[in-house]
Amino acid sequence: MSKIVRYESKGVLSKAVEHAEIVYLAGITAADKLKGIKQQTAEILATIDRLLTVSGTSKSKILTAMVWLSDIRNRAAMNEAWTEWADPGNLPARACVEARLGDPDCLVEIQVTAAK
Amino acid sequence: MSKIVRYESKGVLSKAVEHAEIVYLAGITAADKLKGIKQQTAEILATIDRLLTVSGTSKSKILTAMVWLSDIRNRAAMNEAWTEWADPGNLPARACVEARLGDPDCLVEIQVTAAK
Amino acid sequence: MSKIVRYESKGVLSKAVEHAEIVYLAGITAADKLKGIKQQTAEILATIDRLLTVSGTSKSKILTAMVWLSDIRNRAAMNEAWTEWADPGNLPARACVEARLGDPDCLVEIQVTAAK
Repeated sequence: MSKIVRYESKGVLSKAVEHAEIVYLAGITAADKLKGIKQQTAEILATIDRLLTVSGTSKSKILTAMVWLSDIRNRAAMNEAWTEWADPGNLPARACVEARLGDPDCLVEIQVTAAK
Repeated sequence: MSKIVRYESKGVLSKAVEHAEIVYLAGITAADKLKGIKQQTAEILATIDRLLTVSGTSKSKILTAMVWLSDIRNRAAMNEAWTEWADPGNLPARACVEARLGDPDCLVEIQVTAAK
Repeated sequence: MSKIVRYESKGVLSKAVEHAEIVYLAGITAADKLKGIKQQTAEILATIDRLLTVSGTSKSKILTAMVWLSDIRNRAAMNEAWTEWADPGNLPARACVEARLGDPDCLVEIQVTAAK
């Protein structure tokens, strides 16, 4: 039986949960919601980098990514930030759909899972 | 190779699938769709408790949760039921977005994965 | 530490990622977007069959499925194609919600995970 380790638990969720060689991150949004789509995406990806480091892994080991956009027409701009950030030799399985997000100023939310 | 065990398979899906120390639940909605958001959430969480018990685990071992709300403005009320139910020392990685659900009276759908 | 194997990596994602006995597929849409909902679903499920074969597994080992419909009223027609395809003795945990998809002509997108 593998141990469960939870990171940055607060309010209703943990920001990262580790179990059996896998790290599950919460859906991450940008703190600065005045930014445009590319900048919100870049901020989210930096937060994901930080949480993966905290839980002992890195973006080169991401298995899956889920991207929600408040307006699907922002996909190209989100992908610009994604492409600047992603490890091109280690791309995750990904899905990207439109969804209204928790805060009306949130343009994008991203959730990933990674191997350790 | 780990065995796959499927629980309450009917129609198009299984309500729970177990494999390699992980239990994957289907997206759960309330049977009683005349209830308000907090009551639908509480009913769903009770169903999740039941399915986790059936598959040999419990809410303290939940790894991830996905919450869809038919109206994102119901998030605070959903979170009230969530907070009354969740194990505060064992919060999952969670994401919550808006989505129209299968039945127009469904206000919320929740899907979780848990360790055994 | 299990090895990560990535299949059909191109652009922003890999079509399939394998790790620790699990295969994670990307969200799959139909190439032929002039088709109706049932035909788009059938095409997607054929692509999923192909990707599961490439990564050494099959639909009888699917653990989870996520279905996004651009219009939730298409659920019955999507389910017709799903039911013709699914292994009735091995149904996954599934959720199905509405979401606007990347291409306005996409009616459905499906993402699955499977055991090896």
